[in-house]
Amino acid sequence: MAQKPSNPKGTRDFLPEVMLRRNLIFDTIKEQFIRYGYQAIETPALEKKDTLMGKYGEEGDRLIFKLFPRGRKGEKLLEEKDASHIEEALRYDLTVPFARFVVQHQNELSFPFKRYQIQPVWRADKPQKGRYREFYQCDADVVGSNSLLFEVEFIHIYDKALSKLGLTDFSININNRKILSGIAEVCGESDRIIDITVAIDKLDKIGKEGVQKELSEKGFTSDFLEKIDPLFDLSGSNSEKLEKLKSYLAQSEIGMIGINELEFILDKISKSTLENAKLNFDVTLARGLNYYTGAIFEVKAHGVSIGSIGGGGRYDDLTGIFGLKDKPGVGISFGADRIYDVLEELNLFPDFSKDSTQVLFINFGEAEADFCMQQAELMRANGMNVEVYPESTKMQKQFKYADQKGIPFVVLAGSREIEGGKVQVKNMASGEQRDMDVKSLKEVETWK
Amino acid sequence: MAQKPSNPKGTRDFLPEVMLRRNLIFDTIKEQFIRYGYQAIETPALEKKDTLMGKYGEEGDRLIFKLFPRGRKGEKLLEEKDASHIEEALRYDLTVPFARFVVQHQNELSFPFKRYQIQPVWRADKPQKGRYREFYQCDADVVGSNSLLFEVEFIHIYDKALSKLGLTDFSININNRKILSGIAEVCGESDRIIDITVAIDKLDKIGKEGVQKELSEKGFTSDFLEKIDPLFDLSGSNSEKLEKLKSYLAQSEIGMIGINELEFILDKISKSTLENAKLNFDVTLARGLNYYTGAIFEVKAHGVSIGSIGGGGRYDDLTGIFGLKDKPGVGISFGADRIYDVLEELNLFPDFSKDSTQVLFINFGEAEADFCMQQAELMRANGMNVEVYPESTKMQKQFKYADQKGIPFVVLAGSREIEGGKVQVKNMASGEQRDMDVKSLKEVETWK
Repeated sequence: MAQKPSNPKGTRDFLPEVMLRRNLIFDTIKEQFIRYGYQAIETPALEKKDTLMGKYGEEGDRLIFKLFPRGRKGEKLLEEKDASHIEEALRYDLTVPFARFVVQHQNELSFPFKRYQIQPVWRADKPQKGRYREFYQCDADVVGSNSLLFEVEFIHIYDKALSKLGLTDFSININNRKILSGIAEVCGESDRIIDITVAIDKLDKIGKEGVQKELSEKGFTSDFLEKIDPLFDLSGSNSEKLEKLKSYLAQSEIGMIGINELEFILDKISKSTLENAKLNFDVTLARGLNYYTGAIFEVKAHGVSIGSIGGGGRYDDLTGIFGLKDKPGVGISFGADRIYDVLEELNLFPDFSKDSTQVLFINFGEAEADFCMQQAELMRANGMNVEVYPESTKMQKQFKYADQKGIPFVVLAGSREIEGGKVQVKNMASGEQRDMDVKSLKEVETWK
Repeated sequence: MAQKPSNPKGTRDFLPEVMLRRNLIFDTIKEQFIRYGYQAIETPALEKKDTLMGKYGEEGDRLIFKLFPRGRKGEKLLEEKDASHIEEALRYDLTVPFARFVVQHQNELSFPFKRYQIQPVWRADKPQKGRYREFYQCDADVVGSNSLLFEVEFIHIYDKALSKLGLTDFSININNRKILSGIAEVCGESDRIIDITVAIDKLDKIGKEGVQKELSEKGFTSDFLEKIDPLFDLSGSNSEKLEKLKSYLAQSEIGMIGINELEFILDKISKSTLENAKLNFDVTLARGLNYYTGAIFEVKAHGVSIGSIGGGGRYDDLTGIFGLKDKPGVGISFGADRIYDVLEELNLFPDFSKDSTQVLFINFGEAEADFCMQQAELMRANGMNVEVYPESTKMQKQFKYADQKGIPFVVLAGSREIEGGKVQVKNMASGEQRDMDVKSLKEVETWK
């Protein structure tokens, strides 16, 4: 029986045009990773269940796709109704598998180990617009160094990769977890740092009064609200904000360490040139708080409906969960799906003619096709992408094929043309038709 | 508690050096696919269980990785011990998902539709040497045409891609399913074509006598053995073999159609140039018999322990299982893991310096590092891959990093060198050290 086929909810098929655009994004980012010495690795989609479970919180554990065990294990699972017979699962992100990788292969790696990884991940989430059950992550991390030069490097990577993709208006927001700790300390609420940062992280959305209201509701006193008030009005340049915060945090040792780290990074960046990124110190940025221990990054595109297109930060202990201590690191992530949407909204995707078929030979019959096949081989050897239509069917049908596939040039080589050594070439965009020497077909691309 | 982490059995982590080599293989093949007008697509790892089940035979069904359903469905599965609650599975190959894709998106595609696809697949197989539970397939197919020019095209793609990877000694074996049908017919055993071809497919391994023995055991008569005997002694050039077979199959309509198809392909290839491949008609080749309806390909590397590195063929009806009739096609597959092993055995992998870090700046302290960071940025803008060591630690440690990572050039820029405008460059391969002008560092690669 014929089935009506479809892909599962929350997953996607990528058609050729979309693939070209996605690959442009990945290739551009990859190129910058390589420029800075990051090396590609891949880990399997399948991980042992125990590698993943307990690393993403209770909700995360629920969202991990588990595999039904094969053979006897699967029977036992059903007989005993005991999910502990499940042994394998699909990776939920690239970070935990990377930590596992570093610990497992520590003797084969040179530290600081700089890796990038672009692979799909799976989450058994409720599918909705922009949220998928299978999607690519695109990460670079370095482990095994405390050097803040890596934070500087990642800012450059963000700047260069996004600029090369054509973005001109975006900011890299930066904060430091130690500054957030300092704020909580200065306000006398060190223990409640999470409540505080969850609230001030919303400043963008709900405004100062909204944040104050949320803090009150959570039981923070008016004395506290007064103490934290100056943070909402931090304005001016990065160094102006830093100066104000310095006096504010003067009594907090951890806060001042955070200030120093941030100053170091801003100083190094000021000595170099960013192409398009605006580096912006944002004391309310608190992304992934429990995880990060130093710098926190978030990249935002301006003038588009979708904002955040990347993020990352420093962590002191990524591999500790797998028993390897003292491997601090820092990493960033590019939100490829988001970047795709931004580039589409801003109409920044280029013409892809170099990556798809450039010339189609019309098929007039077997003898002519022999000639065209030979010409096509010569052109391919010159680095061009060429097709010969496979059947000598109606011209209209052959032209329609070129049109639908976006092939820019169509060559008509009938027996008369072949004898004369000249063929007709049609420029599909302009509709113009020309006689061309067979030998110069390899330069047809210059005719625009 | 710290866990001792590892990846699941039958899966692999790919370290940077292996990734470079794998990507070389994929990129080289991809380049040829694109030259001939094949377009990239991707389908999700997850497919509906019903899309996959029943397509690979009973054993295949068992080897499909099924996902444990989340939420209520998962509870029901356990309560009712009813595996029909399982809804999703991991793809087992790229062919069935591609058929699903073509049917689902038929109105968005232009036919003949030429696609390539390089993605992992999963099989819950018993892991053993060279057999993995997760591995990449690398396929190109065209659907929607009967034209034999595509067979010709695929022979060229095999030849070009494998030649570019450095292989010089390999053959593309070709046969035709219709010839096999003709043989069965001529021998009066049309119904037993599978038994016949399973046996003669083993000629390589067990020799003529072995095949005769197997056929006897299966109940074929001595009359039959006599009739089939000439096939074992087919020798000479492709056209000599074809001529002999022509008289042998003269009474079989289907057999003669197969002969004609094969002759067409051999004729077209003889009018063009193959770089290294030897195209070899092998009447005993019967790969994937139930599936293919026309040409059958197998690619074999010579002079290495691993033989088969690719295969494919023509099928009349790939999408029929999903309700779309009359979409014949032909496709090939490259065995990437096998090709990797062959290239390694023959020592054909090139130097990868362009794809990894080319220059490391030694870190002598903050001021020097500032200078190096700036120089590094200039070099990167010129397309080079450059790192600055992140800490001003012991020279020995920094050199060891360069050595382990295979970085060919190390730059020493201390304060004296920086003032003088000249830096020292060490060629890590030769050990030689030179003074170089800071501005000419971007040409360091020419020093070999």
